[in-house]
Order: sequence, then structure tokens, then C-alpha cells
Amino acid sequence: MMMDLLAKRAQTVGPVCVGLDTTEKYLPDCIKEQDRSLGEKFFQFNKQIVDATEDIAACYKLQIACYEALGLDGLQAFAKTLQYIRGKGGIAISDVKRGDISSTASQYAKGHFTGDFASDFMTINAYMGEDAVSPYYEYLKEGKGLFLLVKTSNPSSKDFQDLNIGEETLYQKVAKTVSAWGEAFVGESGFSAIGAVVGLTYPAEFEIIQQLMPKTFFLIPGYGAQGGTGKDIANIFKDKVCGVVNSSRGLIGAHCGKTTGEDFVDYVRNATLTMREDIVKWL
Amino acid sequence: MMMDLLAKRAQTVGPVCVGLDTTEKYLPDCIKEQDRSLGEKFFQFNKQIVDATEDIAACYKLQIACYEALGLDGLQAFAKTLQYIRGKGGIAISDVKRGDISSTASQYAKGHFTGDFASDFMTINAYMGEDAVSPYYEYLKEGKGLFLLVKTSNPSSKDFQDLNIGEETLYQKVAKTVSAWGEAFVGESGFSAIGAVVGLTYPAEFEIIQQLMPKTFFLIPGYGAQGGTGKDIANIFKDKVCGVVNSSRGLIGAHCGKTTGEDFVDYVRNATLTMREDIVKWL
Repeated sequence: MMMDLLAKRAQTVGPVCVGLDTTEKYLPDCIKEQDRSLGEKFFQFNKQIVDATEDIAACYKLQIACYEALGLDGLQAFAKTLQYIRGKGGIAISDVKRGDISSTASQYAKGHFTGDFASDFMTINAYMGEDAVSPYYEYLKEGKGLFLLVKTSNPSSKDFQDLNIGEETLYQKVAKTVSAWGEAFVGESGFSAIGAVVGLTYPAEFEIIQQLMPKTFFLIPGYGAQGGTGKDIANIFKDKVCGVVNSSRGLIGAHCGKTTGEDFVDYVRNATLTMREDIVKWL
Repeated sequence: MMMDLLAKRAQTVGPVCVGLDTTEKYLPDCIKEQDRSLGEKFFQFNKQIVDATEDIAACYKLQIACYEALGLDGLQAFAKTLQYIRGKGGIAISDVKRGDISSTASQYAKGHFTGDFASDFMTINAYMGEDAVSPYYEYLKEGKGLFLLVKTSNPSSKDFQDLNIGEETLYQKVAKTVSAWGEAFVGESGFSAIGAVVGLTYPAEFEIIQQLMPKTFFLIPGYGAQGGTGKDIANIFKDKVCGVVNSSRGLIGAHCGKTTGEDFVDYVRNATLTMREDIVKWL
């Protein structure tokens, strides 16, 4: 089961998830000036980053929006990057945040767990309720995993997620519901194949959520550029490493303003090592 | 502004939105047996349906999941179908239900309002709050439109959307919030460029929502296969035609079990006419 593998890798290699939210501004001149399509340049950039970080990254998360923005050329780069990561034995999370009715969810599951865009994990928006999530279950039985949005890292996440439903907030209700759905898919690591996305930007809320979801492995955005720190993560990982921490800008943009050459990957690797150290020093 | 155009077209041509949720099971043998990729077959199927219904359909809605399911080949068909509809002067809604933080939403907006996948409208999931919606505003100023999820047509929509937030439900809160966001984008038709997705499967809830969103144009799924009727729509349209009603299975699958030849489009056209009649007879 991929969630068991990911949990083990986060424990042994460190919990850094490298966010391949690739956009043109991150491309160094040595790639930008190549005679290739922009999507192909994205792939070359990603490929070199994967080669430079595979021994120190728990996994890679691809934000599909960055690839959809380029149309078909971008989605070709999305497919090739996923295939490259998984071909090397790495773990890939497709950050697609899909959410739709049952028959549609089945199509999304097919699209992102098989074929050109086959990935190990998908992120899912559960706002439409369980029948928008259950079509993925058959893939969980085959080893795939999900991360469902519970409390997101953005400032406006308060607009709806923090509303009070009786004695609790909406995000608490979602947390309990997702945790209950996940009970049927707990693996040998003790974690469910249904994980949760919870932003590091709200540490107090994270602590509440964690108590509601004891068997849940977390995908944690919000480190670095968005304000989350290694100490915030230490508070979450106090009993065990129960998540991977994503950073994108801080890693894949680490070379910006410093080099425009092939050594850009050294900056990305060093930033990844620094982030890992910033987290593991507290554990 | 596209929402003004759509409202006018729904009034004059009728409010039928043909849902191009194309999957292999709907392809007649005359297309299935062609020597083309599956995606290319999807495009041929869609193209013939658009040709056969363009004078009686208000617009077309493409469920992107059906195309993502085929990978790059499917997304090529998605792009070609959008280009075909809009090239003929038709109106296209990309049913993508994207929802993500601000920087990511900007990428989705670029991806679905420009380039290969350029569309007139996108559906958006607003569960992450206003900063997941505001990046689309600059495109609204250029004439594009949005449909935000308020109350979806699926059975599990009750899981979260019906929860009580004090004196109101979550979907009521979302309805009021979306309506307020839309105030800045009201066009000459009196409707905002920010529309709402509300399922026909919950008529009582629809009536409540409608009172909360007086300047909102609706994208209404749930007719036909999901259980909604023309009379339900009449109750919504009692003052004016304030939405388009989507049907997919009932229209693009109308020929199934009846013909496998080129005349499949006659069945699709007739089903579209019948649906239109089922709605307009009450107006």
C-alpha cells in the first residue's frame, strides 16, 4: 500500500515533499534558452530536480494547474514527469483537488490512477460528500492513496471551513467524517490509505484535527513561503512522523537570483537539505 | 459579457444545456469502428451532436473528467470540441469544478480561459473561500463567466452542504456569500457574471437559494436521469428564465439501443427537442 510506503519513507529519508509547481519564472536560462516547447522545458527542469533530490525527498507533489495552464503541451510535461518519478521508484502525488458526483469521480479516478497520468496519490475535495469520494475506494484496495482537503493553508479557508456547526467547526466535522471513511483502509503502518490535507499555517487547528484523526497521514502545505516553520511541524510530529511537508517555491525557486546555469539544481538540493534539517532537528 | 449572452440565448432558444459527458458506451458503431484514437472518436461524436443541436441548445457543457480519463488523447478531444463549439459561435461551459489557493487558481484560470482549453465559463468549487475565487475576477471583466457550486445534485450533497450553521445551512451561507461576491459583476441582463450550480434534485432547497441569490443565473444539473422534471424547472423560472438546465445521458445517449448508425444524431436532436418542450410548455 502506497500510504505505508510513504509513511516509511517519511520516517527514514525525512518528510520533505518537493512541490513541482513549475512555472516559467523558475526556469534558469540554461533551460529557458533551449529550443523546446515550454512544456518540454518544464519536464527538463523537473527531471533535473528529481535527479538531484531523489535520495532526500520523501515524495514529489505536482500541482496540475501549473501544467493545465499550458494546455496540451503542459499536460504532456505533467505525464512525463509522473512517469519519470515513478519509473525511478519515487512516489508521486497528483495535486488535482478533484471533486464531483459519483459517475464523474469514477472518470477522474481512471484518469489519474491509470494511463498517461497514472499517479500514486490524488488530492480530493470532499465538499460534495461521500459519493464523491467512494468511487476512488476500488483503487485504494489496489494500493493507491488519497489526500482529502480538511483545512487548507490559504487565508480565506476561514470563510467556510471555520464556520460553527453546533459545537464544532466545519473543518472538525470534515476531519471526523474523513477519519471515519478511512477506517476501512488502515494499512500495516497504522495509517489509512485516506490521508488529509491540513495547512501548517494554522497550528492550533492542526492540533485539534490531529486528535480527531489518529490514523491519518497528512499532506501538509504551508511551510516556508506561506509561513509555517520546522517548530510547527515538530509539534505535529511529537509522537511519530505522521505526514509529509510540502514546499514548492522555497525549493524549486531556490536558485532564482543566484544562478541561471546548470548548477541551479545544487541550490534546489541544498534548499531541500536545509528544509529537511529544519524539520528533523526537532524530532 | 458571456452571462448576458447566455441569459438571452436561454430566453430565445430555450434553456437546454447539452452535456457532452462523452464516454465510450455512447459511441454508435459507425464511430466506434472508425480507424481513429478513442479521443478522436469522442471529438467526431461531439462534433456531429453540436451540428445537430446548435439551433436548439442554449449552450454545451463539457465534463472534463470524461476527457481526463483518456489522458492526453482525451484532452486533445476536449480542446478540439471547445474550439469547434466556439468557432461556430456557440457557448461552452467547462465543467472542471476547480478549487485551489490563489496562485494555483490563477493557473487554472489561464488554463481554461486562454489557450488550448479556452472556454466561456468554468465551474468552480468555492469551499476554500474567496481567495480561491478572486483570481478569476480579471477574466470576468473581459467577459468570461463562472458557475460556483452551491448545492450539488448528488445524494451525498447533504453530508456537508446541509449542515446547520446557526440559523441557516452551509449551502445557504455559501449562496449568500457567492451572491455578495457577484454584486460587482452584474451585467446588462441583470445577472452577475458569477453564476451558481444548484441541482434540480432538491426543489425545496432551490427555492430557498433562489431567494438568497436574486441576480444569479443558474447552471442546473439533475434533469432527467437524476430525477428532475420540467415542472420543477417551471417553479424556478416562474418570474423569468434564470438558468440553463443540463442533461447529458438523456441526450447524448438517446440513440443507445435504438441505432448504431449515422442517424444517431436524429435521436439526440429529438431528445433535445423533447426536453426543451418539456420545459417551455410550463413557461
